[in-house]
Amino acid sequence: MRSFEVKNRTSVDDIKSIRLITAIKTPYLPDGRFDLEAYDALVNMQIENGAEGVIVGGTTGEGQLMSWDEHIMLIGHTINCYGGSIKVIGNTGSNSTREAIHATEQGFAVGMHAALHINPYYGKTSLEGLVAHLDSVLSMGPTIIYNVPSRTGQDIPASVVHTLAQSPNFAGIKECVGNDRVQEYTGKKIVVWSGNDDECHDSRWSHGATGVISVTSNLVPGLMRQLMFGGKNPSLNAKIMPLVKWLFQEPNPIGLNTALAQLGVVRPVFRLPYVPLPLAKRVEFVNLVKQIGRENFVGEKDVRVLDDDEFVLVSRY
Amino acid sequence: MRSFEVKNRTSVDDIKSIRLITAIKTPYLPDGRFDLEAYDALVNMQIENGAEGVIVGGTTGEGQLMSWDEHIMLIGHTINCYGGSIKVIGNTGSNSTREAIHATEQGFAVGMHAALHINPYYGKTSLEGLVAHLDSVLSMGPTIIYNVPSRTGQDIPASVVHTLAQSPNFAGIKECVGNDRVQEYTGKKIVVWSGNDDECHDSRWSHGATGVISVTSNLVPGLMRQLMFGGKNPSLNAKIMPLVKWLFQEPNPIGLNTALAQLGVVRPVFRLPYVPLPLAKRVEFVNLVKQIGRENFVGEKDVRVLDDDEFVLVSRY
Amino acid sequence: MRSFEVKNRTSVDDIKSIRLITAIKTPYLPDGRFDLEAYDALVNMQIENGAEGVIVGGTTGEGQLMSWDEHIMLIGHTINCYGGSIKVIGNTGSNSTREAIHATEQGFAVGMHAALHINPYYGKTSLEGLVAHLDSVLSMGPTIIYNVPSRTGQDIPASVVHTLAQSPNFAGIKECVGNDRVQEYTGKKIVVWSGNDDECHDSRWSHGATGVISVTSNLVPGLMRQLMFGGKNPSLNAKIMPLVKWLFQEPNPIGLNTALAQLGVVRPVFRLPYVPLPLAKRVEFVNLVKQIGRENFVGEKDVRVLDDDEFVLVSRY
Amino acid sequence: MRSFEVKNRTSVDDIKSIRLITAIKTPYLPDGRFDLEAYDALVNMQIENGAEGVIVGGTTGEGQLMSWDEHIMLIGHTINCYGGSIKVIGNTGSNSTREAIHATEQGFAVGMHAALHINPYYGKTSLEGLVAHLDSVLSMGPTIIYNVPSRTGQDIPASVVHTLAQSPNFAGIKECVGNDRVQEYTGKKIVVWSGNDDECHDSRWSHGATGVISVTSNLVPGLMRQLMFGGKNPSLNAKIMPLVKWLFQEPNPIGLNTALAQLGVVRPVFRLPYVPLPLAKRVEFVNLVKQIGRENFVGEKDVRVLDDDEFVLVSRY
Repeated sequence: MRSFEVKNRTSVDDIKSIRLITAIKTPYLPDGRFDLEAYDALVNMQIENGAEGVIVGGTTGEGQLMSWDEHIMLIGHTINCYGGSIKVIGNTGSNSTREAIHATEQGFAVGMHAALHINPYYGKTSLEGLVAHLDSVLSMGPTIIYNVPSRTGQDIPASVVHTLAQSPNFAGIKECVGNDRVQEYTGKKIVVWSGNDDECHDSRWSHGATGVISVTSNLVPGLMRQLMFGGKNPSLNAKIMPLVKWLFQEPNPIGLNTALAQLGVVRPVFRLPYVPLPLAKRVEFVNLVKQIGRENFVGEKDVRVLDDDEFVLVSRY
Repeated sequence: MRSFEVKNRTSVDDIKSIRLITAIKTPYLPDGRFDLEAYDALVNMQIENGAEGVIVGGTTGEGQLMSWDEHIMLIGHTINCYGGSIKVIGNTGSNSTREAIHATEQGFAVGMHAALHINPYYGKTSLEGLVAHLDSVLSMGPTIIYNVPSRTGQDIPASVVHTLAQSPNFAGIKECVGNDRVQEYTGKKIVVWSGNDDECHDSRWSHGATGVISVTSNLVPGLMRQLMFGGKNPSLNAKIMPLVKWLFQEPNPIGLNTALAQLGVVRPVFRLPYVPLPLAKRVEFVNLVKQIGRENFVGEKDVRVLDDDEFVLVSRY
Repeated sequence: MRSFEVKNRTSVDDIKSIRLITAIKTPYLPDGRFDLEAYDALVNMQIENGAEGVIVGGTTGEGQLMSWDEHIMLIGHTINCYGGSIKVIGNTGSNSTREAIHATEQGFAVGMHAALHINPYYGKTSLEGLVAHLDSVLSMGPTIIYNVPSRTGQDIPASVVHTLAQSPNFAGIKECVGNDRVQEYTGKKIVVWSGNDDECHDSRWSHGATGVISVTSNLVPGLMRQLMFGGKNPSLNAKIMPLVKWLFQEPNPIGLNTALAQLGVVRPVFRLPYVPLPLAKRVEFVNLVKQIGRENFVGEKDVRVLDDDEFVLVSRY
Repeated sequence: MRSFEVKNRTSVDDIKSIRLITAIKTPYLPDGRFDLEAYDALVNMQIENGAEGVIVGGTTGEGQLMSWDEHIMLIGHTINCYGGSIKVIGNTGSNSTREAIHATEQGFAVGMHAALHINPYYGKTSLEGLVAHLDSVLSMGPTIIYNVPSRTGQDIPASVVHTLAQSPNFAGIKECVGNDRVQEYTGKKIVVWSGNDDECHDSRWSHGATGVISVTSNLVPGLMRQLMFGGKNPSLNAKIMPLVKWLFQEPNPIGLNTALAQLGVVRPVFRLPYVPLPLAKRVEFVNLVKQIGRENFVGEKDVRVLDDDEFVLVSRY
């Protein structure tokens, strides 16, 4: 199921060179379907503020709560509307090899620039199985590997990454294990994006990382752009850090979803099993916005504390 | 689930003005998956020879044999690669209102220019039900209605079409009932595309039809272009007619699939319940190609009679 | 994907001998999901009144509006709860061979007693294609073939049926073309169930049909039992006929859905594209019930005329 | 979507009292579809050797590699054939609340006796989100909660379990965290099944566990039955332990799949990302069988070391 159309091809080098990639939020209508109007606004804010790539349907974008047809549709939509302005990286990974193959074929067919692949979380497998899993998708196009043992229950060891890196389609790794691991890779010319917003400044400026795949940049894309492009800047990093800590006090994207709703850029609709942060935390966020400066955050409306009954939780959609 | 992105919007007038729309063939790999490389070549041949639109996943393209995710992927792929060169009309119709809504939302989300909608075939419904069905999708974007009672078991009467035509999204009707019906619509300024290749010359030049949604143009796009643009031309029409008759001796796309395989532009792979025409008919096609002129047909290879054992029939894919 | 478990096997002869099969209605909750509690009540009424089989997810049961997983679930539910009391025949046919194969494998795996198969409606195919389509499912278990050209747009000719009848799994044909065709089959010992309630009395008693696959028996199962078992009975037939005519004035199951709602045995919920009959027709039904006798109809509540605003139409579910 | 049919209901107490539950293997045909014939044989072996329940489509049964329709079909098949002889517990859990709800409704509709539910792995959520997730399915029928932080990346704390235990549908917990946690629950009359074969003897006899949900019992059901019913038996436990250690050297079900293939009871077919253990380990297994006694293992054939090229790995199915 290949296409040789030029428009469906992106070079791996194009992917390797980008520094700020946002794991974009997926906003919802009150019935739980995608709110594409809000989504488009979010993507436009990223483009305007200097993000160079988006992960569509990542864990932040709640790919795990999408049916595959929704997921591929969102990738296709993004590439159709914004493919000329930003790199579109589809999270077509899965713990099922069949699903990963099918989704990755479809994602490249609708034009995504690169795929993000995870090791088989939850079900897990042996290292041989892991390599077989990733090998079955790596031939399809530019690929970023994602290592996040705190979610998957299993580390992708450096030995596996070195094997995968032989492939001409291997663009690099989104690494969450820490800066020692980052250093280990960058020392061997493997492209790394930090997967931890709290470490990414150091990853970039002290450990050779190319950039970050960020959650926080959904909120303050301009500041994250500066953090990745403007040279070592501990004071900017320190300014952002309280926001990062607030964002990750509960499993992502709970904090992000709560924040974006309070900024008025998405409807306060949650797909279960995600629920908003409690009131006290929501008040904290408003204070953080004031501290850091409303102008650094996405959206134009006043930030405000939402009441419990303003949130809509959907379980069937 | 709306998007206001300009790139996702096409005007109804843009659809109304096109004359040659090809109900494009979907080619397959031996395992039954889409052969996108061959598909891309087919679409390019259409563009080069003057077709202005394609129906993706129509009955000719065997939408009825696709899962919806395949179907939407193919629409997204087509728009991504060719949306600037040709109008992409997704056949997102269904006899299930739920499916029609879901597919049409997704089709417009990935950027299709217009939708093709059928009345509920097989299950059928009352006229009130039919209007409710079509109303539920008409608001989403430019729409062509498709009337083919020999397949659906139920005519869409003119009264219903007049009602639908009030919608600003109504582009026109693909009508298969005959030229009296065509005349009835064009007399009232309703745009009509003939759905019968054997009648389309007269529909266009004697009954006010705007053009044709054609099967035959998969094979001889240049001749069909001439037939729709070059003025009344009974001798050209007579030249094409034996090919048209050959094509429709069995339910479409059996003839088309057999022909394209023998022209060497698609692999001889059939998804069941379609099977190739028998050998004697395959010999007839080769003779027809010689009569009409190989140079008028798509592809560069010699046309040849395929043996029975060269065909691959797939039932699981 | 075979199972040799005895509990998963039914003999073809067991299917051949049953006379009254009801194409059972699928009732819905207000959100469009199945109302299993109401469904169970409907099936129990059939069992109590002498129906010997049910078609699950037929056109009457709106299989065309189900996702396949709903469809198979309903078959599995029916077999689990009632498989010991009534034959469960799953409508696992499709115009897509792939879907027909997948659904039929699954239906037999969850224990259905027999499959109902249709020729490829809408997409249609050649006779060779039709035979290939049906051959691909006939090996899986006891099978009834369904011929209804007014829906499919294509007759299954006797020659094809004679070929299929060679299979040990061929149980018989549900034939809608009329009593001449019925006679043609029964003269050759092919089991026939009438698919037309208005003809079934004559099919059974004058043309050798084994019985009927009935819509009307959803409403008056006891009368239909008598019609099929009690010997030639023109006066009973005449008594039922006005109800039959009322039921089929619009495409089935519009009349049936309206009737069952007014009898108080299902919620007045319609999945689009079906909509209720208009008020005047609903009044007629109440009069018919009084004429024929409330006691002959399913349910215990008074029949009543429902108002327009009591009906719920669902398009997303 | 409820059913009040008696046949569709099982009491929570019936679930609470069973001690040996096997997380049953799903065997495959060479094309990756279910091998129901082999599956039936496996279930029969469990029944004959005293297992009282099976988990269908657990992580051992590779539910994570099934489409939901396959998954529900397998539950329906199992209940239909064996529901009278063994309790059928469907693993209808998911990290997506929507999927968990849909699958659990369908599983109970086709007759499963109880559901197994996991916390949202990989995507994770807050404790409030976790409770909301489980609450949305707990009302549907008897439920076992499954805690396995090494797979999910997140512990279900005792506080949450105590909350869930208020529900009349809460049957108990499959706990993998260890015997201190087991003790904590059993001290409060919460039913616990050990999820660790290496600890289950002590869980059962020293920490109040009711029994085990076992992987090892796929291989030696009789011995596991004895271990759970025959009183404290350290020597039997010691005898089994080398097998348990062998089984879990790689993520389950890699060892189990390899073992069952070598015992000749399933075809040596793996769905990726699972691959067989390497040759040296396969030799070890044959030796273990000889040590423990072939007669204690399922199947009748000689155990043998399979060659690499006897295994079939499938990625599309």
